[in-house]
Amino acid sequence: MGAKFEELKPHFERMMALKTAMILFEWDDATLAPKEAGKLTEKVIGTLSGEYFCAVNNDKVRELAHACEKEEGLSEAEAAQVRELLEEIAKLDAIPQEEYQAFARLTAGAVRTWTKAKEENDFDAFAPTLEKVIDYQKKFAGYRAKEGQKKYDVMLNDFEPGFSMELLDTFFSVIKKEIVPLLKAVQASHVEIDDSFLTGDFTDEQQEKIGRFVAEYVGFDFAKGVMAVSAHPFTTNLHNRDVRITTHYGKNLDSSLFSIIHETGHALYELGVRDDLTQTLVGEGASMGMHESQSRFFENILGRNKSFWVPIYSKLQEAFPENLGKVSLDAFVRAVNKATPGFIRTEADELTYSLHVLIRYELEKELIEGDLQVKDLPRIWADKYEEYLGVRPENVREGVLQDIHWSQGSFGYFPSYALGSAFGAQMYAHMKKEMDVDKLLEEGKLSVIREYLREHIHQYGKLKKSREILKEMTGEDFNANYYVEYLKEKYGELYAL
Amino acid sequence: MGAKFEELKPHFERMMALKTAMILFEWDDATLAPKEAGKLTEKVIGTLSGEYFCAVNNDKVRELAHACEKEEGLSEAEAAQVRELLEEIAKLDAIPQEEYQAFARLTAGAVRTWTKAKEENDFDAFAPTLEKVIDYQKKFAGYRAKEGQKKYDVMLNDFEPGFSMELLDTFFSVIKKEIVPLLKAVQASHVEIDDSFLTGDFTDEQQEKIGRFVAEYVGFDFAKGVMAVSAHPFTTNLHNRDVRITTHYGKNLDSSLFSIIHETGHALYELGVRDDLTQTLVGEGASMGMHESQSRFFENILGRNKSFWVPIYSKLQEAFPENLGKVSLDAFVRAVNKATPGFIRTEADELTYSLHVLIRYELEKELIEGDLQVKDLPRIWADKYEEYLGVRPENVREGVLQDIHWSQGSFGYFPSYALGSAFGAQMYAHMKKEMDVDKLLEEGKLSVIREYLREHIHQYGKLKKSREILKEMTGEDFNANYYVEYLKEKYGELYAL
Repeated sequence: MGAKFEELKPHFERMMALKTAMILFEWDDATLAPKEAGKLTEKVIGTLSGEYFCAVNNDKVRELAHACEKEEGLSEAEAAQVRELLEEIAKLDAIPQEEYQAFARLTAGAVRTWTKAKEENDFDAFAPTLEKVIDYQKKFAGYRAKEGQKKYDVMLNDFEPGFSMELLDTFFSVIKKEIVPLLKAVQASHVEIDDSFLTGDFTDEQQEKIGRFVAEYVGFDFAKGVMAVSAHPFTTNLHNRDVRITTHYGKNLDSSLFSIIHETGHALYELGVRDDLTQTLVGEGASMGMHESQSRFFENILGRNKSFWVPIYSKLQEAFPENLGKVSLDAFVRAVNKATPGFIRTEADELTYSLHVLIRYELEKELIEGDLQVKDLPRIWADKYEEYLGVRPENVREGVLQDIHWSQGSFGYFPSYALGSAFGAQMYAHMKKEMDVDKLLEEGKLSVIREYLREHIHQYGKLKKSREILKEMTGEDFNANYYVEYLKEKYGELYAL
Repeated sequence: MGAKFEELKPHFERMMALKTAMILFEWDDATLAPKEAGKLTEKVIGTLSGEYFCAVNNDKVRELAHACEKEEGLSEAEAAQVRELLEEIAKLDAIPQEEYQAFARLTAGAVRTWTKAKEENDFDAFAPTLEKVIDYQKKFAGYRAKEGQKKYDVMLNDFEPGFSMELLDTFFSVIKKEIVPLLKAVQASHVEIDDSFLTGDFTDEQQEKIGRFVAEYVGFDFAKGVMAVSAHPFTTNLHNRDVRITTHYGKNLDSSLFSIIHETGHALYELGVRDDLTQTLVGEGASMGMHESQSRFFENILGRNKSFWVPIYSKLQEAFPENLGKVSLDAFVRAVNKATPGFIRTEADELTYSLHVLIRYELEKELIEGDLQVKDLPRIWADKYEEYLGVRPENVREGVLQDIHWSQGSFGYFPSYALGSAFGAQMYAHMKKEMDVDKLLEEGKLSVIREYLREHIHQYGKLKKSREILKEMTGEDFNANYYVEYLKEKYGELYAL
């Protein structure tokens, strides 16, 4: 370790402590905090966020970071922390502190405004806040843009470095060209899949019990993690010994079940980060897309595979005897793979999911780079759903207000969801050459799969970019065809196309 | 507001944000965090605590605080914040930062060490840690002592300013002289009280449901608060819109029920703090003793009063029909007031409670000012229990390891528990002259009582010291006789003495 890096260490510790505190407040706010806590807690978070800003963005840290850039003898992990810090400094340097803090306060409140507006199905109640959020984000992207760089590319780069509009336009045009017709063929198919048995009046306790079992079966370690309930399922991590997932319980048993498998995929990523990286600036997943590749790999590619359920389907039947007692494994697996165009992204099946993201990509691009006005969102949203999915939402709760992300200021985030599925499909194609995935699943040997992913992906945290990880693992640059082929094969078979 | 005070405001905000973050981590650690999170989270807390230290203890803040001392036109609340800050500075100034941080890390770990040692009934596993905690606290008290001031008086002053060993020696000698013989008379009484129906195999869900009902009945506002489960019940507050209580569930229905009423008493205090004081250095209860006066007032003086249960006893019977269905209200009230000398302070009845505290006071005094060695604690502890309560603990889990407080570094804290009961009794004697407390209880008008306490106590936060509040409210300085008379009257009647 170099002398300058040694001097940076207490600064890194400050940053991580403040960041971890903010993460805990976010978790608490989403899972537990009382309704009226909002305003005062927002102020606390705003102040902590200002402190974080000062911890990164000060002359001493800037000087040390630049000195470290030239320092010899840094380990790979140390060099990566310095690189990440310099990126963070550049990002913060561009934004005046008051605006940064005001934005942090705004988004803390915006989440509550969105929650209420969604409950009350009232877009107008959220629109002025959303406009403010977008204005801030456009302004920030403008501050941060390199010469000639588009604002939306700045945003995209935050979640998926290396994937700009140019590449994404191509990616989504393939999706549009291939998946929209595939969905139409599926809908025209004579095959009828019964999934009525997935719906019922299940108690939260029933669902939680089997949910915990499945999380643990997939590999979630409750000695290092917590599972709770929130409006929208998510995963958060304080460090690699404290990773937390949430779910929500409703009338569809598959909804909470697969959300838990999904979040467990995220959690395994964070739990698998190396000890020397956790609680550093590079101690989390490489990118949103790489994260989604893991959650979607577990949820869809493994979790909706018949082989996955072979060892544990009887457990599920025992948990829900009235609904599943007489349902065969085959019928269950067909049901959880049924493609039904719907309004809600988080409830979407594997086939239609990418179309939900396609719509958000097109809208975000127009909001940031084009002329789309916030007030027109509900109508345009509905038009696109009608065009791509064949369904038109009747209300904003099931339309443009369904997602929390815009209220948090996350623009450029949604595309990573679809990229994650595509990464996962590419990994799966490669893994099948290396091991008999189905056999491992049938024998309940998920640890072999987990270890493989840990070795090739999880352990590195942010040491590598997502494209690099993908290339080193599969021997090939990102290639969307694997995803399209995977879907065509799976749904072709399921719907006898 | 003065110009210098205006300059201090962002510094106050930093302090409060860091303090609030540490409070949230403590809450999370006690109620939710996974087992293995400990070490890494400790480090985060240690860093935040160091940041808090820096936020208070720096040249700029010191200069501003002293300037504000002389500034004119400060409101009462502002002047109190400055006074509190100067006290805090004096306290921190005396302690080297490295030692302060090391101590914060030590106690974070010590709580876990204590938890494990208690589970395993192994005092030796905790003793070295306890020795370290005591050494730190003695060293810190030495740094902070004014000329001629005893170390234990420094510690006592942190929890109950104005109550030194001199006053407490007198207070506890009255307790020893009056309550030890009163307990012996109770034990010699021919009156037998049946409380067998309070024990049973209750589910957590049953207990939680009625617990939430009772908390709300007493006045806990779930829009501004949270109730959870922890090993040892406690109350914590982020601010007056987010106050949290915990309980634990076991085989005695009265244990969790009255712990909830107790913690609700604490919570009402914090919820009642004025809006202009919350999230400031004077935005919490005046002292530990004043806090305990509120929790004990609700738990014992109101909660174990027959009148309290008149409107809601039928609810309790419905919740536990097998146990309470055929038990009269009179029999229930007698049962929850039964005096039974036992090992566990937190499960102690109102009569024996102060004897548990007496023992801790005598031991702490000897540990800090005398020659008592940590290794001898289990034996001396048992000897004193035998002498004052007539019972000798057979193991350390039910003996010296029962309380969390020493592991947190809280010495000088226990006496406030007994003082709180005494404050409460003095308040009660006064309130009975002002209003018909029993009638209000019978009519379920707890809001009148709450409002009275809010007006005379809660709203002020730390604007006034406990002795001052007590004097202004009751027209009299602290007088322990009210407490002794209250107990004599109550238990004399109950046991026909």
